[in-house]
Amino acid sequence: MPDTRLDLDRIRAARRVIDPVFLDTPLFRCEALGRALGCAVSIKLETANPVRSFKGRGTELVASGLSEQGRTAAVCASAGNLGWALGWSGRRRGLETTVVASRRAPAAKLDRIRALGAVLELVDGDFDMARERAASMARQRGVRLVEDSLDIETCEGAATIGLELTRRPPDFDTVLIALGGGAMATGVGHVLKSLAPEVEVICVQPHGAPAMTRSWHERRVVTTDSTDTIADGVAGRHPIPAVLDDLLKVADDAVLVQEASIVTGMRMLMEHAGLIVEPSAALGVAAVLEDPGRFAGRHLVTIICGSNVNLDDYHRWGAGRPATSP
Amino acid sequence: MPDTRLDLDRIRAARRVIDPVFLDTPLFRCEALGRALGCAVSIKLETANPVRSFKGRGTELVASGLSEQGRTAAVCASAGNLGWALGWSGRRRGLETTVVASRRAPAAKLDRIRALGAVLELVDGDFDMARERAASMARQRGVRLVEDSLDIETCEGAATIGLELTRRPPDFDTVLIALGGGAMATGVGHVLKSLAPEVEVICVQPHGAPAMTRSWHERRVVTTDSTDTIADGVAGRHPIPAVLDDLLKVADDAVLVQEASIVTGMRMLMEHAGLIVEPSAALGVAAVLEDPGRFAGRHLVTIICGSNVNLDDYHRWGAGRPATSP
Repeated sequence: MPDTRLDLDRIRAARRVIDPVFLDTPLFRCEALGRALGCAVSIKLETANPVRSFKGRGTELVASGLSEQGRTAAVCASAGNLGWALGWSGRRRGLETTVVASRRAPAAKLDRIRALGAVLELVDGDFDMARERAASMARQRGVRLVEDSLDIETCEGAATIGLELTRRPPDFDTVLIALGGGAMATGVGHVLKSLAPEVEVICVQPHGAPAMTRSWHERRVVTTDSTDTIADGVAGRHPIPAVLDDLLKVADDAVLVQEASIVTGMRMLMEHAGLIVEPSAALGVAAVLEDPGRFAGRHLVTIICGSNVNLDDYHRWGAGRPATSP
Repeated sequence: MPDTRLDLDRIRAARRVIDPVFLDTPLFRCEALGRALGCAVSIKLETANPVRSFKGRGTELVASGLSEQGRTAAVCASAGNLGWALGWSGRRRGLETTVVASRRAPAAKLDRIRALGAVLELVDGDFDMARERAASMARQRGVRLVEDSLDIETCEGAATIGLELTRRPPDFDTVLIALGGGAMATGVGHVLKSLAPEVEVICVQPHGAPAMTRSWHERRVVTTDSTDTIADGVAGRHPIPAVLDDLLKVADDAVLVQEASIVTGMRMLMEHAGLIVEPSAALGVAAVLEDPGRFAGRHLVTIICGSNVNLDDYHRWGAGRPATSP
């Protein structure tokens, strides 16, 4: 049992709080994708819910806790998915939710946050600048700042994915997890290392946003000055020390992938699995594409963590084009 | 309780036979699609499984029954989905599966049937010609002919979708069901009319393959000479009398939609729900598009029955193009 901020009993209890629409998501073998990648591939699909990402698992815990405390408002910084999910969970419980996002975030994600009735504040700059602005707003107004990966509920919510993966003795040997702030990686990783320690936990991040991966390899917080990746959902520059500590205890490896591999991964998920995914959700496939020898003959699970992608971007990147077409 | 060939106890028992990977599929509100259509829309997603359609529910029952009887082979005619599902269920139980398909069936579907180790026989002509050829092969070889919609297991398998829709008191008032041979419509319809009779059951078929819809309206079997639709999964010319009898007892309406509406429906499902679907799965959305006044303000469920589509076709039809692009 790794000694992290996470706790199995709390994660199990979380299942009773989270709206069932986010739980017990599909887990299935995709033979066509496996043939194309030279290994067995199972997909854990986190996109078939009202907010099209796994983030609802965590925001349900956050919003439920706030509601029990009689709080009426929350603010978060978000590249889109956390904001949409917090807006959804907050609306159900009568919370006023303010989401601070980069003006560069996908328009489709921002529109959906507005449609929930959440207040949307846009900042010029990247995710970390949105995080600073959200923090100062929360201080000024005295409302709860929801911080992805730092707030334990966001990790515990993601960790319920791990419970579902280990419900039966795993027939897979590897789980590939998109790495951004680290909520999903530490949450799922904690459960896997507790209940199925033989399964290899591999985190995947873009070369264009490598801060947490570099930090994991150097065993200390490494920040970067900028990010440059289409995978907006995992593009942070300032790893959170407590999250890095946990990640060091539950991840077996952390790898970086090229943008071109992410696009090819998106295209393969469309072609072989019929799935439209956002770039972050293709990181696992990208990792296999860049190191096929490592994964040959193995049975891996890749968590398809979100499908919130601007379709114009998707087509501009070439993700929507069948590989067989010119 | 409608007096059909179906029986609730048998449908409930079917859940214990069907591989869990096909059961308890996602059911979730898609607010973006609802806003675009002027009503509340929930999606029942039948594509997140190893064969990317709902057909595995039925073929699990068929193959399990054959296996219990000590049979070693089965043959079916299929536009693709039944064949893939029967091949999958048969392989698990050591059955030799032969699938007879039209040479016009999508190449991607045919490749996946071959990859399962099933024997694939192609005929020049449409689905009904494949059906005749499969029947004669089964007679000659003395093996079980699996007939979609006629064989009660195919209806009972689909009917388990109905159990999942009615697990809690429905908050929807309408279910839109793609109508082809009638297995899904009679199966789901039977459960709805038994457990939630106030819910309107509306079947949707393309104008280009209208035989069952015309039969339902005329209350007698009406056949057509040909079919002309991109919705290959529902393109039959010869309704089965016993299935029509059941459909008359469980469907509240049966409507026909244009090809252009099917393509727009596919595009909307991509744009607003992030789902790649095959044409049959867009019939429900197409029905709303053609009669928005009828559905305004209602809460409908549309069953996304399959995502097996040739991506070249998908793009050629224009289904992959965002509506906002030129």
